[in-house]
Amino acid sequence: MKRKVAVALAAVTLAGTAFAQARPENLIKWRQSGYTFMAWNMTRIKANVEGQFNKDEVLKAANAIQAIANSGMGALYAPGTDKGKGWKETEAKPELFTDKEGVGKVAMAFNKEANELAKVAASGDAAAVKAQFNKVGETCKSCHEKFRKDDH
Amino acid sequence: MKRKVAVALAAVTLAGTAFAQARPENLIKWRQSGYTFMAWNMTRIKANVEGQFNKDEVLKAANAIQAIANSGMGALYAPGTDKGKGWKETEAKPELFTDKEGVGKVAMAFNKEANELAKVAASGDAAAVKAQFNKVGETCKSCHEKFRKDDH
Repeated sequence: MKRKVAVALAAVTLAGTAFAQARPENLIKWRQSGYTFMAWNMTRIKANVEGQFNKDEVLKAANAIQAIANSGMGALYAPGTDKGKGWKETEAKPELFTDKEGVGKVAMAFNKEANELAKVAASGDAAAVKAQFNKVGETCKSCHEKFRKDDH
Repeated sequence: MKRKVAVALAAVTLAGTAFAQARPENLIKWRQSGYTFMAWNMTRIKANVEGQFNKDEVLKAANAIQAIANSGMGALYAPGTDKGKGWKETEAKPELFTDKEGVGKVAMAFNKEANELAKVAASGDAAAVKAQFNKVGETCKSCHEKFRKDDH
């Protein structure tokens, strides 16, 4: 009951009315899906910069990462979603829901590097993609270390 | 063992070497994540066209759908992934792996309408977004009816 009230209140602060009815398990599932889909695309880019480079595939992957990074996933961290199961138990640390400044910092760093990756991918320069891919990876890692449980 | 061989052979036909090592359960998980993340974004756009329209939120959501639609998810349907569990058991019908012409048709229809949705969202015209959102929804439905088990 408490959780339902918290989510209902949180919805007021979210854009529009899109989440007024969203259940915590859906919010968690949606955010887990976003990260997992980005992970696929990071995997593809990694394989391309380490093996045969296919500009078209890298660009598609970088565009997907960029659009998801900019989609406003912050809205999926409504109060009441600090614990619970989406596809699996959430791995978010409690600090993710309290340290607004710290979260803002890692989120902005990730978005900046993801936007840059999409730009570099459009150029088709394999060496530049490799360097920028590593920068994106560092922002993923830095967020995981700070805000994800049992870092793996 | 048979499945492993099938996936290894399939990898040869996929772009680059990105999937040479991918396990069937990962391919299934990745595609389920893509659809689930798109579902979130469809939910957001629906709420916007039925309630208060926030141009920025709709554009972010439409861009995410567009980039995922164009990411090349077809590669996630490698042989050996017609059965199995990603986040959950795959709901793909056997026809999805045999009816190439039919699959190509629904996939192209979806991509076309998703691309158009991103364009219309950039215009900020709420009525046009509503009409185009419905067109995208129809392409989702048509694919689910043909190629998803236990349509729900």
